Amino acid sequence: MINWYTPAPPQAPFFASIFNYYLGEDLEGYEAYDVQTLELVKQIPGFLGYESMKHEGRGTFISYWANKDAIKVWAQHPIHQKAKELGRNKWYRYYHSMIAEVQSFHSHSF
Amino acid sequence: MINWYTPAPPQAPFFASIFNYYLGEDLEGYEAYDVQTLELVKQIPGFLGYESMKHEGRGTFISYWANKDAIKVWAQHPIHQKAKELGRNKWYRYYHSMIAEVQSFHSHSF
Repeated sequence: MINWYTPAPPQAPFFASIFNYYLGEDLEGYEAYDVQTLELVKQIPGFLGYESMKHEGRGTFISYWANKDAIKVWAQHPIHQKAKELGRNKWYRYYHSMIAEVQSFHSHSF
Repeated sequence: MINWYTPAPPQAPFFASIFNYYLGEDLEGYEAYDVQTLELVKQIPGFLGYESMKHEGRGTFISYWANKDAIKVWAQHPIHQKAKELGRNKWYRYYHSMIAEVQSFHSHSF
Protein backbone atom coordinates (compact mmCIF):
# COMPACT_ATOMS: atom_id res chain seq x y z
CA MET A 1 0.00 0.00 0.00
CA ILE A 2 1.31 3.46 -0.81
CA ASN A 3 1.48 5.93 2.06
CA TRP A 4 0.20 9.05 0.34
CA TYR A 5 0.99 12.43 1.86
CA THR A 6 -1.54 14.08 -0.39
CA PRO A 7 -5.29 14.34 0.40
CA ALA A 8 -6.00 11.80 -2.36
CA PRO A 9 -3.78 9.68 -4.62
CA PRO A 10 -2.26 12.04 -7.18
CA GLN A 11 -3.29 12.05 -10.82
CA ALA A 12 -0.69 10.87 -13.32
CA PRO A 13 1.69 12.09 -14.58
CA PHE A 14 3.94 12.19 -11.54
CA PHE A 15 7.38 10.73 -10.83
CA ALA A 16 8.75 7.72 -8.99
CA SER A 17 12.19 7.15 -7.56
CA ILE A 18 12.59 3.39 -7.23
CA PHE A 19 15.34 1.98 -5.06
CA ASN A 20 15.87 -1.76 -4.76
CA TYR A 21 18.56 -3.41 -2.64
CA TYR A 22 20.01 -6.52 -1.11
CA LEU A 23 21.62 -6.00 2.25
CA GLY A 24 25.04 -7.43 3.09
CA GLU A 25 26.51 -8.58 6.41
CA ASP A 26 27.67 -5.36 8.04
CA LEU A 27 24.57 -3.34 8.89
CA GLU A 28 26.12 -1.10 11.53
CA GLY A 29 24.35 2.26 11.38
CA TYR A 30 21.82 1.11 8.81
CA GLU A 31 18.62 1.29 10.88
CA ALA A 32 19.35 4.79 12.18
CA TYR A 33 19.93 6.11 8.63
CA ASP A 34 16.85 4.30 7.38
CA VAL A 35 14.70 6.16 9.92
CA GLN A 36 16.49 9.47 9.36
CA THR A 37 16.25 9.44 5.56
CA LEU A 38 12.54 8.58 5.72
CA GLU A 39 11.93 11.56 8.01
CA LEU A 40 13.96 13.71 5.64
CA VAL A 41 12.11 12.71 2.48
CA LYS A 42 8.77 13.73 4.02
CA GLN A 43 10.01 17.29 4.46
CA ILE A 44 10.99 17.93 0.87
CA PRO A 45 8.49 20.02 -1.15
CA GLY A 46 7.08 17.95 -4.00
CA PHE A 47 7.18 14.68 -2.05
CA LEU A 48 3.85 12.87 -2.60
CA GLY A 49 4.19 9.56 -0.79
CA TYR A 50 6.16 6.34 -0.49
CA GLU A 51 6.01 2.61 -0.17
CA SER A 52 8.50 0.29 1.42
CA MET A 53 8.76 -3.48 1.45
CA LYS A 54 11.44 -5.57 3.15
CA HIS A 55 11.85 -9.31 3.27
CA GLU A 56 14.87 -11.47 4.06
CA GLY A 57 17.49 -8.81 3.44
CA ARG A 58 15.88 -7.64 0.24
CA GLY A 59 14.01 -4.39 0.00
CA THR A 60 12.29 -1.85 -2.21
CA PHE A 61 11.75 1.78 -1.38
CA ILE A 62 9.71 3.81 -3.83
CA SER A 63 9.13 7.51 -3.30
CA TYR A 64 6.65 9.50 -5.41
CA TRP A 65 7.18 13.07 -6.48
CA ALA A 66 5.39 15.94 -8.17
CA ASN A 67 8.36 16.74 -10.40
CA LYS A 68 11.98 15.82 -11.12
CA ASP A 69 13.46 18.92 -9.51
CA ALA A 70 12.09 17.72 -6.15
CA ILE A 71 13.82 14.35 -6.70
CA LYS A 72 17.05 16.23 -7.35
CA VAL A 73 16.72 18.11 -4.06
CA TRP A 74 16.21 14.78 -2.29
CA ALA A 75 19.11 13.12 -4.14
CA GLN A 76 21.51 15.94 -3.32
CA HIS A 77 20.63 16.39 0.34
CA PRO A 78 23.77 15.79 2.49
CA ILE A 79 22.08 13.19 4.74
CA HIS A 80 20.87 11.26 1.70
CA GLN A 81 24.31 11.54 0.08
CA LYS A 82 25.95 10.21 3.24
CA ALA A 83 23.46 7.32 3.41
CA LYS A 84 24.23 6.46 -0.23
CA GLU A 85 27.95 6.50 0.44
CA LEU A 86 27.57 4.21 3.46
CA GLY A 87 25.26 1.98 1.44
CA ARG A 88 27.77 1.58 -1.36
CA ASN A 89 30.74 1.04 0.96
CA LYS A 90 29.13 -1.06 3.67
CA TRP A 91 25.46 -2.06 3.72
CA TYR A 92 24.51 -3.17 0.21
CA ARG A 93 25.48 -6.25 -1.78
CA TYR A 94 23.45 -5.01 -4.71
CA TYR A 95 21.18 -2.14 -5.57
CA HIS A 96 19.47 -0.57 -8.51
CA SER A 97 17.82 2.79 -8.76
CA MET A 98 15.47 4.22 -11.34
CA ILE A 99 13.75 7.50 -12.02
CA ALA A 100 10.48 6.94 -13.83
CA GLU A 101 7.60 9.05 -15.03
CA VAL A 102 4.32 7.44 -13.96
CA GLN A 103 2.02 7.86 -16.94
CA SER A 104 -1.00 6.01 -15.57
CA PHE A 105 -2.01 5.03 -12.05
CA HIS A 106 -5.04 3.13 -10.78
CA SER A 107 -5.77 1.73 -7.34
CA HIS A 108 -8.66 -0.37 -6.07
CA SER A 109 -9.69 -1.60 -2.65
CA PHE A 110 -12.30 -4.36 -2.37
CA MET B 1 17.16 -8.44 -8.36
CA ILE B 2 15.70 -8.00 -11.82
CA ASN B 3 15.56 -11.09 -14.01
CA TRP B 4 16.65 -9.62 -17.33
CA TYR B 5 15.81 -11.48 -20.52
CA THR B 6 18.18 -9.28 -22.47
CA PRO B 7 21.94 -9.95 -22.80
CA ALA B 8 22.63 -6.95 -20.54
CA PRO B 9 20.40 -4.59 -18.55
CA PRO B 10 18.68 -2.31 -21.06
CA GLN B 11 19.57 1.35 -21.44
CA ALA B 12 16.90 3.84 -20.39
CA PRO B 13 14.43 4.88 -21.63
CA PHE B 14 12.31 1.75 -21.36
CA PHE B 15 8.96 1.06 -19.71
CA ALA B 16 7.77 -0.54 -16.49
CA SER B 17 4.42 -2.05 -15.65
CA ILE B 18 4.17 -2.04 -11.86
CA PHE B 19 1.57 -4.17 -10.14
CA ASN B 20 1.19 -4.13 -6.38
CA TYR B 21 -1.34 -6.20 -4.43
CA TYR B 22 -2.61 -7.50 -1.14
CA LEU B 23 -4.09 -10.95 -1.30
CA GLY B 24 -7.42 -11.77 0.34
CA GLU B 25 -8.70 -15.02 1.83
CA ASP B 26 -9.92 -16.98 -1.18
CA LEU B 27 -6.85 -17.90 -3.23
CA GLU B 28 -8.36 -20.78 -5.15
CA GLY B 29 -6.75 -20.87 -8.60
CA TYR B 30 -4.28 -18.11 -7.80
CA GLU B 31 -1.01 -20.08 -7.90
CA ALA B 32 -1.82 -21.71 -11.23
CA TYR B 33 -2.57 -18.33 -12.84
CA ASP B 34 0.50 -16.81 -11.28
CA VAL B 35 2.70 -19.42 -13.00
CA GLN B 36 0.75 -19.23 -16.26
CA THR B 37 0.84 -15.45 -16.58
CA LEU B 38 4.59 -15.39 -15.88
CA GLU B 39 5.17 -17.92 -18.65
CA LEU B 40 2.97 -15.84 -20.92
CA VAL B 41 4.72 -12.53 -20.29
CA LYS B 42 8.08 -14.03 -21.29
CA GLN B 43 6.72 -14.85 -24.74
CA ILE B 44 5.56 -11.36 -25.66
CA PRO B 45 7.90 -9.45 -28.02
CA GLY B 46 9.26 -6.37 -26.28
CA PHE B 47 9.38 -8.02 -22.85
CA LEU B 48 12.74 -7.19 -21.24
CA GLY B 49 12.59 -8.69 -17.76
CA TYR B 50 10.77 -8.77 -14.45
CA GLU B 51 11.08 -8.75 -10.72
CA SER B 52 8.72 -10.21 -8.17
CA MET B 53 8.61 -9.91 -4.41
CA LYS B 54 6.08 -11.49 -2.06
CA HIS B 55 5.81 -11.29 1.68
CA GLU B 56 2.92 -11.99 4.03
CA GLY B 57 0.18 -11.72 1.43
CA ARG B 58 1.61 -8.57 -0.09
CA GLY B 59 3.36 -8.57 -3.41
CA THR B 60 4.87 -6.54 -6.21
CA PHE B 61 5.32 -7.69 -9.77
CA ILE B 62 7.19 -5.35 -12.10
CA SER B 63 7.65 -6.19 -15.75
CA TYR B 64 9.96 -4.18 -18.02
CA TRP B 65 9.26 -3.46 -21.66
CA ALA B 66 10.87 -1.98 -24.74
CA ASN B 67 7.77 0.06 -25.60
CA LYS B 68 4.17 0.73 -24.61
CA ASP B 69 2.64 -1.21 -27.48
CA ALA B 70 4.18 -4.39 -26.04
CA ILE B 71 2.57 -3.61 -22.67
CA LYS B 72 -0.75 -3.24 -24.47
CA VAL B 73 -0.37 -6.68 -26.06
CA TRP B 74 0.33 -8.12 -22.59
CA ALA B 75 -2.57 -6.22 -20.99
CA GLN B 76 -5.03 -7.38 -23.62
CA HIS B 77 -4.03 -11.04 -23.78
CA PRO B 78 -7.05 -13.24 -22.86
CA ILE B 79 -5.17 -15.18 -20.15
CA HIS B 80 -4.02 -11.93 -18.55
CA GLN B 81 -7.53 -10.46 -18.83
CA LYS B 82 -8.98 -13.55 -17.16
CA ALA B 83 -6.37 -13.36 -14.36
CA LYS B 84 -7.25 -9.69 -13.80
CA GLU B 85 -10.95 -10.50 -13.64
CA LEU B 86 -10.36 -13.29 -11.10
CA GLY B 87 -8.05 -11.00 -9.16
CA ARG B 88 -10.66 -8.26 -8.90
CA ASN B 89 -13.49 -10.63 -8.04
CA LYS B 90 -11.70 -13.07 -5.77
CA TRP B 91 -8.01 -12.90 -4.92
CA TYR B 92 -7.16 -9.28 -4.16
CA ARG B 93 -8.09 -7.06 -1.24
CA TYR B 94 -6.25 -4.18 -2.83
CA TYR B 95 -4.12 -3.50 -5.86
CA HIS B 96 -2.59 -0.66 -7.74
CA SER B 97 -1.08 -0.64 -11.18
CA MET B 98 1.11 1.87 -12.94
CA ILE B 99 2.67 2.30 -16.34
CA ALA B 100 5.88 4.28 -16.08
CA GLU B 101 8.63 5.38 -18.42
CA VAL B 102 12.00 4.59 -16.85
CA GLN B 103 14.17 7.61 -17.62
CA SER B 104 17.30 6.53 -15.79
CA PHE B 105 18.50 3.16 -14.55
CA HIS B 106 21.64 2.20 -12.64
CA SER B 107 22.57 -1.07 -10.97
CA HIS B 108 25.58 -2.04 -8.88
CA SER B 109 26.82 -5.29 -7.39
CA PHE B 110 29.52 -5.22 -4.72
